Amino acid sequence: SGLVLVKNPHLDLMEEDILYHLDLGTKTHNLPAMFGDIKFVCVGGSPNRMRAFAQFMQRELGLAGDGEDVADICAGSDRYAMYRAGPVLSISHGMGIPSISIMLHELIKLLHHAKCRDVTIIRIGTSGGLGIKAGSVVITDTAVDSSFQPRFEQVVLDDVVVRSTELDKDLAEELLACSREIPDFPTLIGHTMCTYDFYEGQGRLDGALCSFSSEKKLEYLRRAYDAGVRNIEMESTAFAALCGLCGLKGESCCFFHLL
Amino acid sequence: SGLVLVKNPHLDLMEEDILYHLDLGTKTHNLPAMFGDIKFVCVGGSPNRMRAFAQFMQRELGLAGDGEDVADICAGSDRYAMYRAGPVLSISHGMGIPSISIMLHELIKLLHHAKCRDVTIIRIGTSGGLGIKAGSVVITDTAVDSSFQPRFEQVVLDDVVVRSTELDKDLAEELLACSREIPDFPTLIGHTMCTYDFYEGQGRLDGALCSFSSEKKLEYLRRAYDAGVRNIEMESTAFAALCGLCGLKGESCCFFHLL
Repeated sequence: SGLVLVKNPHLDLMEEDILYHLDLGTKTHNLPAMFGDIKFVCVGGSPNRMRAFAQFMQRELGLAGDGEDVADICAGSDRYAMYRAGPVLSISHGMGIPSISIMLHELIKLLHHAKCRDVTIIRIGTSGGLGIKAGSVVITDTAVDSSFQPRFEQVVLDDVVVRSTELDKDLAEELLACSREIPDFPTLIGHTMCTYDFYEGQGRLDGALCSFSSEKKLEYLRRAYDAGVRNIEMESTAFAALCGLCGLKGESCCFFHLL
Repeated sequence: SGLVLVKNPHLDLMEEDILYHLDLGTKTHNLPAMFGDIKFVCVGGSPNRMRAFAQFMQRELGLAGDGEDVADICAGSDRYAMYRAGPVLSISHGMGIPSISIMLHELIKLLHHAKCRDVTIIRIGTSGGLGIKAGSVVITDTAVDSSFQPRFEQVVLDDVVVRSTELDKDLAEELLACSREIPDFPTLIGHTMCTYDFYEGQGRLDGALCSFSSEKKLEYLRRAYDAGVRNIEMESTAFAALCGLCGLKGESCCFFHLL
Protein backbone atom coordinates (compact mmCIF):
# COMPACT_ATOMS: atom_id res chain seq x y z
CA SER A 1 0.00 0.00 0.00
CA GLY A 2 3.04 2.24 0.27
CA LEU A 3 2.07 3.28 3.79
CA VAL A 4 4.60 3.40 6.63
CA LEU A 5 4.48 0.27 8.84
CA VAL A 6 4.49 0.86 12.58
CA LYS A 7 4.60 -2.49 14.40
CA ASN A 8 3.21 -1.16 17.66
CA PRO A 9 -0.50 -2.06 17.93
CA HIS A 10 -0.78 0.28 20.92
CA LEU A 11 -0.11 3.35 18.77
CA ASP A 12 -3.49 3.50 17.00
CA LEU A 13 -5.35 3.00 20.29
CA MET A 14 -3.83 6.10 21.86
CA GLU A 15 -5.98 9.15 22.27
CA GLU A 16 -3.05 11.40 21.50
CA ASP A 17 0.50 10.85 20.27
CA ILE A 18 2.81 13.68 21.25
CA LEU A 19 5.94 13.87 19.10
CA TYR A 20 7.64 15.65 21.94
CA HIS A 21 11.07 16.42 20.46
CA LEU A 22 9.52 17.74 17.23
CA ASP A 23 6.95 19.87 19.09
CA LEU A 24 4.11 18.25 17.07
CA GLY A 25 1.20 16.02 18.06
CA THR A 26 -1.92 14.29 16.75
CA LYS A 27 -4.28 16.50 18.80
CA THR A 28 -2.52 19.83 18.40
CA HIS A 29 -1.76 19.52 14.67
CA ASN A 30 -3.59 18.23 11.60
CA LEU A 31 -0.75 15.97 10.49
CA PRO A 32 -2.45 14.60 7.31
CA ALA A 33 -3.10 18.18 6.11
CA MET A 34 0.40 19.35 7.01
CA PHE A 35 2.39 16.36 5.75
CA GLY A 36 0.13 13.96 3.77
CA ASP A 37 1.73 14.88 0.40
CA ILE A 38 5.35 14.43 1.51
CA LYS A 39 7.27 12.07 -0.82
CA PHE A 40 10.90 12.67 0.14
CA VAL A 41 12.53 13.19 3.51
CA CYS A 42 16.16 14.31 3.69
CA VAL A 43 17.92 14.18 7.03
CA GLY A 44 21.33 15.45 8.16
CA GLY A 45 23.12 16.37 11.38
CA SER A 46 23.31 20.16 11.27
CA PRO A 47 20.19 22.38 11.51
CA ASN A 48 21.81 25.17 9.47
CA ARG A 49 22.69 22.80 6.65
CA MET A 50 19.18 21.33 6.56
CA ARG A 51 17.77 24.85 6.32
CA ALA A 52 20.14 25.64 3.46
CA PHE A 53 19.10 22.38 1.78
CA ALA A 54 15.39 23.26 2.00
CA GLN A 55 16.15 26.68 0.46
CA PHE A 56 18.13 24.96 -2.30
CA MET A 57 15.25 22.54 -2.98
CA GLN A 58 12.82 25.43 -3.11
CA ARG A 59 14.91 27.08 -5.85
CA GLU A 60 15.48 23.78 -7.71
CA LEU A 61 11.76 22.97 -7.71
CA GLY A 62 10.90 26.48 -8.93
CA LEU A 63 8.60 27.08 -5.95
CA ALA A 64 7.35 30.55 -5.06
CA GLY A 65 9.62 32.74 -2.94
CA ASP A 66 13.28 33.60 -3.19
CA GLY A 67 14.34 30.61 -1.11
CA GLU A 68 14.78 32.70 2.01
CA ASP A 69 11.36 32.14 3.50
CA VAL A 70 11.52 28.58 4.80
CA ALA A 71 10.18 28.42 8.36
CA ASP A 72 11.27 25.95 11.05
CA ILE A 73 8.23 23.68 11.60
CA CYS A 74 9.76 22.54 14.93
CA ALA A 75 10.54 26.09 16.11
CA GLY A 76 8.99 25.33 19.52
CA SER A 77 11.69 22.71 20.19
CA ASP A 78 15.43 23.33 20.12
CA ARG A 79 16.19 19.60 19.69
CA TYR A 80 15.69 19.40 15.91
CA ALA A 81 14.88 21.74 13.02
CA MET A 82 12.43 20.85 10.20
CA TYR A 83 11.72 22.66 6.91
CA ARG A 84 9.67 21.78 3.86
CA ALA A 85 9.97 22.64 0.17
CA GLY A 86 7.06 21.19 -1.80
CA PRO A 87 7.02 17.40 -1.36
CA VAL A 88 10.45 17.43 0.33
CA LEU A 89 10.92 17.53 4.09
CA SER A 90 14.37 18.49 5.41
CA ILE A 91 15.14 17.64 9.06
CA SER A 92 18.22 17.80 11.29
CA HIS A 93 19.08 14.86 13.56
CA GLY A 94 22.02 16.02 15.69
CA MET A 95 25.04 13.76 16.14
CA GLY A 96 25.13 10.05 16.90
CA ILE A 97 22.82 7.05 17.00
CA PRO A 98 20.72 7.98 20.06
CA SER A 99 20.01 11.45 18.65
CA ILE A 100 19.00 10.21 15.17
CA SER A 101 16.97 7.37 16.77
CA ILE A 102 14.75 9.78 18.72
CA MET A 103 14.17 11.89 15.60
CA LEU A 104 13.45 8.87 13.38
CA HIS A 105 10.98 7.42 15.89
CA GLU A 106 9.01 10.66 15.87
CA LEU A 107 9.40 11.25 12.12
CA ILE A 108 8.22 7.73 11.22
CA LYS A 109 5.18 8.09 13.52
CA LEU A 110 4.52 11.48 11.90
CA LEU A 111 4.53 9.87 8.41
CA HIS A 112 2.23 7.13 9.76
CA HIS A 113 -0.24 9.57 11.35
CA ALA A 114 -0.16 11.76 8.22
CA LYS A 115 -0.95 8.68 6.05
CA CYS A 116 1.96 9.43 3.73
CA ARG A 117 2.55 6.93 0.90
CA ASP A 118 5.68 5.81 -0.98
CA VAL A 119 8.08 7.97 0.98
CA THR A 120 11.81 7.86 0.21
CA ILE A 121 14.16 8.91 2.99
CA ILE A 122 17.75 9.93 2.33
CA ARG A 123 20.43 10.84 4.86
CA ILE A 124 22.71 13.54 3.42
CA GLY A 125 25.57 14.09 5.82
CA THR A 126 29.29 14.44 6.23
CA SER A 127 31.70 11.61 6.92
CA GLY A 128 35.36 10.68 6.99
CA GLY A 129 36.59 8.89 3.87
CA LEU A 130 38.71 5.75 3.67
CA GLY A 131 41.05 5.43 0.70
CA ILE A 132 38.96 7.78 -1.44
CA LYS A 133 39.44 11.29 -2.79
CA ALA A 134 38.42 14.20 -0.50
CA GLY A 135 35.17 15.69 -1.76
CA SER A 136 33.78 12.34 -2.91
CA VAL A 137 30.22 11.31 -2.20
CA VAL A 138 29.74 7.78 -0.86
CA ILE A 139 26.34 6.19 -1.47
CA THR A 140 25.91 3.46 1.13
CA ASP A 141 24.91 -0.02 0.01
CA THR A 142 25.18 -1.46 3.52
CA ALA A 143 25.89 0.20 6.84
CA VAL A 144 28.26 -1.81 9.05
CA ASP A 145 29.28 -1.63 12.71
CA SER A 146 32.85 -1.30 14.06
CA SER A 147 33.38 -5.05 13.44
CA PHE A 148 32.35 -4.50 9.78
CA GLN A 149 29.13 -6.49 10.29
CA PRO A 150 25.83 -5.41 8.63
CA ARG A 151 23.88 -5.20 11.88
CA PHE A 152 22.50 -2.76 14.41
CA GLU A 153 22.19 -3.89 18.00
CA GLN A 154 19.41 -2.13 19.89
CA VAL A 155 18.95 -2.75 23.61
CA VAL A 156 15.18 -3.02 24.23
CA LEU A 157 14.83 -3.12 28.04
CA ASP A 158 17.57 -5.68 28.72
CA ASP A 159 17.29 -7.68 25.50
CA VAL A 160 19.62 -7.06 22.59
CA VAL A 161 17.61 -6.98 19.34
CA VAL A 162 19.76 -7.34 16.20
CA ARG A 163 18.46 -5.63 13.05
CA SER A 164 19.67 -5.68 9.47
CA THR A 165 21.31 -2.57 8.01
CA GLU A 166 20.95 -3.14 4.27
CA LEU A 167 19.77 -0.14 2.29
CA ASP A 168 17.81 0.07 -0.94
CA LYS A 169 20.11 -1.14 -3.74
CA ASP A 170 17.91 0.20 -6.60
CA LEU A 171 17.81 3.64 -5.00
CA ALA A 172 21.60 3.57 -4.58
CA GLU A 173 22.01 2.81 -8.30
CA GLU A 174 19.51 5.53 -9.22
CA LEU A 175 21.42 8.10 -7.15
CA LEU A 176 24.71 6.97 -8.71
CA ALA A 177 23.19 7.46 -12.19
CA CYS A 178 22.09 11.00 -11.20
CA SER A 179 25.62 11.84 -10.04
CA ARG A 180 26.99 10.84 -13.46
CA GLU A 181 24.98 13.59 -15.12
CA ILE A 182 27.02 16.18 -13.20
CA PRO A 183 30.61 16.82 -14.33
CA ASP A 184 33.44 16.44 -11.77
CA PHE A 185 31.23 14.93 -9.10
CA PRO A 186 33.20 11.95 -7.74
CA THR A 187 30.65 9.45 -6.44
CA LEU A 188 30.89 5.79 -5.51
CA ILE A 189 28.86 3.04 -3.85
CA GLY A 190 30.41 1.36 -0.80
CA HIS A 191 29.92 0.22 2.77
CA THR A 192 29.65 2.88 5.46
CA MET A 193 30.98 2.16 8.95
CA CYS A 194 29.05 3.65 11.84
CA THR A 195 30.74 4.32 15.21
CA TYR A 196 29.56 5.50 18.62
CA ASP A 197 32.28 8.12 18.95
CA PHE A 198 34.09 10.61 16.77
CA TYR A 199 37.49 10.63 18.51
CA GLU A 200 38.15 7.26 20.14
CA GLY A 201 35.73 5.24 17.99
CA GLN A 202 37.31 6.48 14.77
CA GLY A 203 40.87 6.51 16.14
CA ARG A 204 41.62 10.23 15.72
CA LEU A 205 45.09 10.14 17.29
CA ASP A 206 45.39 13.89 17.37
CA GLY A 207 42.09 14.53 19.11
CA ALA A 208 41.47 11.74 21.60
CA LEU A 209 41.77 11.88 25.39
CA CYS A 210 43.60 8.54 25.56
CA SER A 211 46.75 7.41 23.77
CA PHE A 212 46.91 4.51 21.34
CA SER A 213 49.25 3.10 18.73
CA SER A 214 49.23 4.51 15.22
CA GLU A 215 50.29 1.07 13.87
CA LYS A 216 47.15 -0.46 15.35
CA LYS A 217 45.04 2.33 13.88
CA LEU A 218 46.48 1.84 10.39
CA GLU A 219 46.07 -1.93 10.59
CA TYR A 220 42.40 -1.48 11.64
CA LEU A 221 41.61 1.02 8.88
CA ARG A 222 43.30 -1.29 6.36
CA ARG A 223 41.05 -4.15 7.49
CA ALA A 224 38.01 -1.85 7.22
CA TYR A 225 38.98 -0.93 3.65
CA ASP A 226 39.46 -4.61 2.75
CA ALA A 227 35.97 -5.31 4.15
CA GLY A 228 34.54 -2.76 1.69
CA VAL A 229 34.24 0.27 4.01
CA ARG A 230 34.70 3.56 2.13
CA ASN A 231 33.57 6.05 4.76
CA ILE A 232 32.93 6.41 8.50
CA GLU A 233 30.17 8.32 10.26
CA MET A 234 27.93 8.04 13.32
CA GLU A 235 24.30 7.40 12.30
CA SER A 236 23.99 5.01 9.34
CA THR A 237 23.34 1.67 11.12
CA ALA A 238 20.44 3.08 13.18
CA PHE A 239 19.10 4.88 10.09
CA ALA A 240 19.20 1.71 7.95
CA ALA A 241 17.71 -0.45 10.73
CA LEU A 242 14.77 1.86 11.46
CA CYS A 243 13.99 2.47 7.75
CA GLY A 244 14.04 -1.30 7.19
CA LEU A 245 11.84 -1.98 10.21
CA CYS A 246 9.13 0.39 8.94
CA GLY A 247 9.26 -0.46 5.22
CA LEU A 248 10.68 2.91 4.20
CA LYS A 249 12.82 3.14 1.07
CA GLY A 250 15.99 4.53 2.60
CA GLU A 251 19.44 5.57 1.44
CA SER A 252 22.45 7.27 2.99
CA CYS A 253 24.77 9.48 0.91
CA CYS A 254 27.68 11.05 2.70
CA PHE A 255 29.95 13.75 1.49
CA PHE A 256 33.57 13.04 2.51
CA HIS A 257 34.60 16.24 4.13
CA LEU A 258 38.23 16.86 5.20
CA LEU A 259 38.29 18.40 8.70
CA SER B 1 48.13 20.20 40.74
CA GLY B 2 44.42 20.50 39.97
CA LEU B 3 45.11 20.56 36.24
CA VAL B 4 43.08 18.50 33.78
CA LEU B 5 44.83 15.24 32.80
CA VAL B 6 44.89 14.40 29.12
CA LYS B 7 46.50 10.99 28.59
CA ASN B 8 47.40 11.59 24.97
CA PRO B 9 51.11 12.49 24.69
CA HIS B 10 50.55 13.47 21.06
CA LEU B 11 48.33 16.41 22.04
CA ASP B 12 51.08 18.71 23.34
CA LEU B 13 53.23 18.03 20.27
CA MET B 14 50.60 19.30 17.85
CA GLU B 15 51.11 22.64 16.21
CA GLU B 16 47.40 23.37 16.42
CA ASP B 17 44.44 21.71 18.09
CA ILE B 18 41.16 22.58 16.38
CA LEU B 19 38.13 22.02 18.61
CA TYR B 20 36.06 21.67 15.50
CA HIS B 21 32.55 21.24 16.91
CA LEU B 22 33.02 24.17 19.32
CA ASP B 23 34.46 26.44 16.62
CA LEU B 24 37.51 27.15 18.80
CA GLY B 25 41.21 26.34 18.39
CA THR B 26 44.64 26.85 19.94
CA LYS B 27 45.89 29.03 17.04
CA THR B 28 42.75 31.06 16.42
CA HIS B 29 41.87 31.76 20.08
CA ASN B 30 43.81 32.64 23.23
CA LEU B 31 42.27 29.86 25.30
CA PRO B 32 44.13 30.64 28.60
CA ALA B 33 42.94 34.27 28.41
CA MET B 34 39.39 33.29 27.48
CA PHE B 35 38.91 30.36 29.87
CA GLY B 36 41.85 30.17 32.34
CA ASP B 37 39.70 31.34 35.30
CA ILE B 38 36.80 28.89 34.76
CA LYS B 39 36.04 26.89 37.94
CA PHE B 40 32.64 25.36 37.15
CA VAL B 41 31.26 23.85 33.98
CA CYS B 42 27.55 23.02 33.75
CA VAL B 43 26.36 20.91 30.82
CA GLY B 44 22.87 19.98 29.64
CA GLY B 45 21.14 18.77 26.48
CA SER B 46 19.21 21.80 25.28
CA PRO B 47 20.94 24.98 23.99
CA ASN B 48 18.03 27.21 25.07
CA ARG B 49 18.11 25.86 28.62
CA MET B 50 21.88 26.31 28.89
CA ARG B 51 21.47 29.93 27.76
CA ALA B 52 18.75 30.47 30.38
CA PHE B 53 21.03 28.87 32.99
CA ALA B 54 23.91 31.25 32.13
CA GLN B 55 21.52 34.21 32.44
CA PHE B 56 20.33 32.87 35.80
CA MET B 57 23.94 32.47 37.02
CA GLN B 58 24.72 35.99 35.91
CA ARG B 59 21.88 37.33 38.07
CA GLU B 60 22.73 35.03 41.01
CA LEU B 61 26.39 36.09 40.96
CA GLY B 62 25.43 39.78 40.79
CA LEU B 63 27.41 40.28 37.59
CA ALA B 64 26.97 43.39 35.45
CA GLY B 65 24.17 43.35 32.89
CA ASP B 66 20.52 42.45 33.10
CA GLY B 67 21.17 38.80 32.34
CA GLU B 68 20.06 39.21 28.73
CA ASP B 69 23.47 39.83 27.24
CA VAL B 70 25.10 36.39 27.30
CA ALA B 71 26.68 35.64 23.92
CA ASP B 72 27.11 32.20 22.37
CA ILE B 73 30.89 31.56 22.39
CA CYS B 74 30.36 28.76 19.81
CA ALA B 75 28.13 30.87 17.55
CA GLY B 76 30.16 29.79 14.49
CA SER B 77 29.05 26.16 15.03
CA ASP B 78 25.46 24.94 15.20
CA ARG B 79 26.49 21.72 16.98
CA TYR B 80 26.69 23.11 20.54
CA ALA B 81 26.05 26.40 22.34
CA MET B 82 28.37 27.80 25.06
CA TYR B 83 27.87 30.74 27.43
CA ARG B 84 29.83 32.05 30.37
CA ALA B 85 28.83 33.88 33.55
CA GLY B 86 31.89 34.76 35.65
CA PRO B 87 33.73 31.53 36.56
CA VAL B 88 30.84 29.38 35.28
CA LEU B 89 30.71 27.93 31.78
CA SER B 90 27.34 26.64 30.52
CA ILE B 91 27.37 24.32 27.48
CA SER B 92 24.79 22.24 25.62
CA HIS B 93 25.61 18.66 24.60
CA GLY B 94 22.66 17.48 22.49
CA MET B 95 21.10 14.09 23.12
CA GLY B 96 22.80 10.77 23.72
CA ILE B 97 26.24 9.37 24.48
CA PRO B 98 27.92 10.03 21.10
CA SER B 99 26.81 13.68 21.15
CA ILE B 100 27.98 14.36 24.74
CA SER B 101 31.23 12.43 24.06
CA ILE B 102 32.23 14.74 21.21
CA MET B 103 31.47 17.82 23.32
CA LEU B 104 33.33 16.47 26.38
CA HIS B 105 36.39 15.57 24.32
CA GLU B 106 36.63 19.12 23.02
CA LEU B 107 35.68 20.73 26.35
CA ILE B 108 38.28 18.72 28.31
CA LYS B 109 40.98 19.63 25.79
CA LEU B 110 39.85 23.27 26.03
CA LEU B 111 40.27 23.17 29.85
CA HIS B 112 43.69 21.53 29.34
CA HIS B 113 44.89 24.12 26.79
CA ALA B 114 43.52 26.96 28.95
CA LYS B 115 45.46 25.56 31.97
CA CYS B 116 42.34 25.63 34.15
CA ARG B 117 42.73 24.31 37.70
CA ASP B 118 40.33 22.63 40.14
CA VAL B 119 37.39 22.55 37.77
CA THR B 120 34.08 21.01 38.85
CA ILE B 121 31.77 19.79 36.11
CA ILE B 122 28.07 19.19 36.69
CA ARG B 123 25.51 17.79 34.25
CA ILE B 124 22.13 19.43 34.84
CA GLY B 125 19.57 17.70 32.67
CA THR B 126 16.15 16.12 32.51
CA SER B 127 15.41 12.46 33.07
CA GLY B 128 12.62 9.98 33.65
CA GLY B 129 12.09 9.04 37.30
CA LEU B 130 11.66 5.57 38.78
CA GLY B 131 9.47 5.27 41.87
CA ILE B 132 10.04 8.89 42.86
CA LYS B 133 7.87 12.01 42.93
CA ALA B 134 7.63 14.03 39.69
CA GLY B 135 9.66 17.21 40.03
CA SER B 136 12.34 15.53 42.16
CA VAL B 137 16.04 16.10 41.54
CA VAL B 138 18.23 12.99 41.49
CA ILE B 139 21.91 13.49 42.31
CA THR B 140 23.78 10.54 40.79
CA ASP B 141 26.19 8.59 42.97
CA THR B 142 26.91 6.06 40.21
CA ALA B 143 25.82 5.92 36.60
CA VAL B 144 24.86 2.41 35.47
CA ASP B 145 24.20 0.81 32.08
CA SER B 146 21.04 -1.06 31.01
CA SER B 147 22.25 -4.13 32.96
CA PHE B 148 22.57 -1.93 36.08
CA GLN B 149 26.38 -2.22 36.01
CA PRO B 150 28.64 0.76 36.89
CA ARG B 151 30.53 0.71 33.63
CA PHE B 152 30.86 2.43 30.29
CA GLU B 153 31.98 0.42 27.30
CA GLN B 154 33.78 2.48 24.68
CA VAL B 155 34.79 0.90 21.39
CA VAL B 156 38.30 2.21 20.56
CA LEU B 157 39.01 0.96 17.03
CA ASP B 158 37.85 -2.65 17.51
CA ASP B 159 38.73 -3.03 21.19
CA VAL B 160 36.12 -2.56 23.90
CA VAL B 161 37.57 -0.42 26.71
CA VAL B 162 35.55 -0.62 29.96
CA ARG B 163 35.62 2.47 32.18
CA SER B 164 34.27 3.11 35.66
CA THR B 165 31.25 5.39 36.08
CA GLU B 166 31.50 6.40 39.73
CA LEU B 167 30.96 10.07 40.42
CA ASP B 168 32.33 12.29 43.19
CA LYS B 169 30.61 11.22 46.44
CA ASP B 170 31.66 14.32 48.42
CA LEU B 171 30.30 16.60 45.71
CA ALA B 172 27.03 14.64 45.69
CA GLU B 173 26.68 15.13 49.49
CA GLU B 174 27.54 18.82 49.14
CA LEU B 175 24.85 19.31 46.50
CA LEU B 176 22.33 17.41 48.64
CA ALA B 177 23.14 19.72 51.57
CA CYS B 178 22.55 22.76 49.31
CA SER B 179 19.15 21.40 48.25
CA ARG B 180 18.11 21.15 51.92
CA GLU B 181 18.46 24.90 52.30
CA ILE B 182 15.63 25.39 49.78
CA PRO B 183 12.07 24.64 50.93
CA ASP B 184 9.98 22.13 48.93
CA PHE B 185 12.86 20.98 46.78
CA PRO B 186 12.64 17.16 46.74
CA THR B 187 16.16 15.87 46.17
CA LEU B 188 17.72 12.45 46.61
CA ILE B 189 20.93 10.58 45.85
CA GLY B 190 20.61 7.43 43.73
CA HIS B 191 21.88 5.48 40.76
CA THR B 192 21.13 6.83 37.30
CA MET B 193 20.60 4.41 34.42
CA CYS B 194 21.88 5.51 31.01
CA THR B 195 20.38 4.09 27.80
CA TYR B 196 21.18 4.41 24.10
CA ASP B 197 17.61 5.16 23.12
CA PHE B 198 14.65 7.09 24.46
CA TYR B 199 11.80 4.92 23.12
CA GLU B 200 12.92 1.31 22.84
CA GLY B 201 15.82 1.54 25.33
CA GLN B 202 13.56 2.95 28.03
CA GLY B 203 10.52 0.82 27.07
CA ARG B 204 8.11 3.64 26.23
CA LEU B 205 5.23 1.42 25.14
CA ASP B 206 3.25 4.29 23.74
CA GLY B 207 5.99 5.74 21.63
CA ALA B 208 8.07 2.89 20.21
CA LEU B 209 8.07 1.56 16.65
CA CYS B 210 8.03 -2.09 17.81
CA SER B 211 5.65 -3.83 20.17
CA PHE B 212 6.62 -5.43 23.45
CA SER B 213 5.00 -6.74 26.59
CA SER B 214 4.02 -4.37 29.38
CA GLU B 215 4.56 -7.18 31.94
CA LYS B 216 8.18 -7.49 30.82
CA LYS B 217 8.61 -3.72 31.01
CA LEU B 218 7.25 -3.56 34.56
CA GLU B 219 9.38 -6.50 35.67
CA TYR B 220 12.48 -4.80 34.20
CA LEU B 221 11.77 -1.45 35.82
CA ARG B 222 11.14 -3.23 39.15
CA ARG B 223 14.55 -4.90 38.88
CA ALA B 224 16.13 -1.52 38.04
CA TYR B 225 14.53 0.04 41.16
CA ASP B 226 15.74 -2.88 43.32
CA ALA B 227 19.26 -2.32 41.95
CA GLY B 228 19.11 1.28 43.22
CA VAL B 229 18.18 3.08 39.98
CA ARG B 230 16.10 6.19 40.62
CA ASN B 231 16.15 7.84 37.19
CA ILE B 232 16.89 7.12 33.53
CA GLU B 233 18.57 9.34 30.95
CA MET B 234 20.95 9.09 28.01
CA GLU B 235 24.36 10.61 28.86
CA SER B 236 25.48 9.83 32.44
CA THR B 237 27.76 6.82 31.87
CA ALA B 238 29.84 8.59 29.20
CA PHE B 239 29.91 11.75 31.34
CA ALA B 240 31.11 9.87 34.45
CA ALA B 241 33.66 7.84 32.48
CA LEU B 242 35.26 10.83 30.73
CA CYS B 243 35.33 12.98 33.91
CA GLY B 244 36.98 10.07 35.76
CA LEU B 245 39.51 9.50 32.98
CA CYS B 246 40.69 13.13 33.09
CA GLY B 247 40.64 13.68 36.85
CA LEU B 248 37.74 16.12 36.77
CA LYS B 249 35.46 16.39 39.79
CA GLY B 250 32.15 15.52 38.17
CA GLU B 251 28.51 15.16 39.20
CA SER B 252 25.23 14.61 37.42
CA CYS B 253 21.98 16.05 38.80
CA CYS B 254 18.85 15.37 36.84
CA PHE B 255 15.49 16.91 37.23
CA PHE B 256 12.73 14.32 36.82
CA HIS B 257 10.47 15.88 34.29
CA LEU B 258 7.11 14.32 33.40
CA LEU B 259 6.66 14.34 29.61
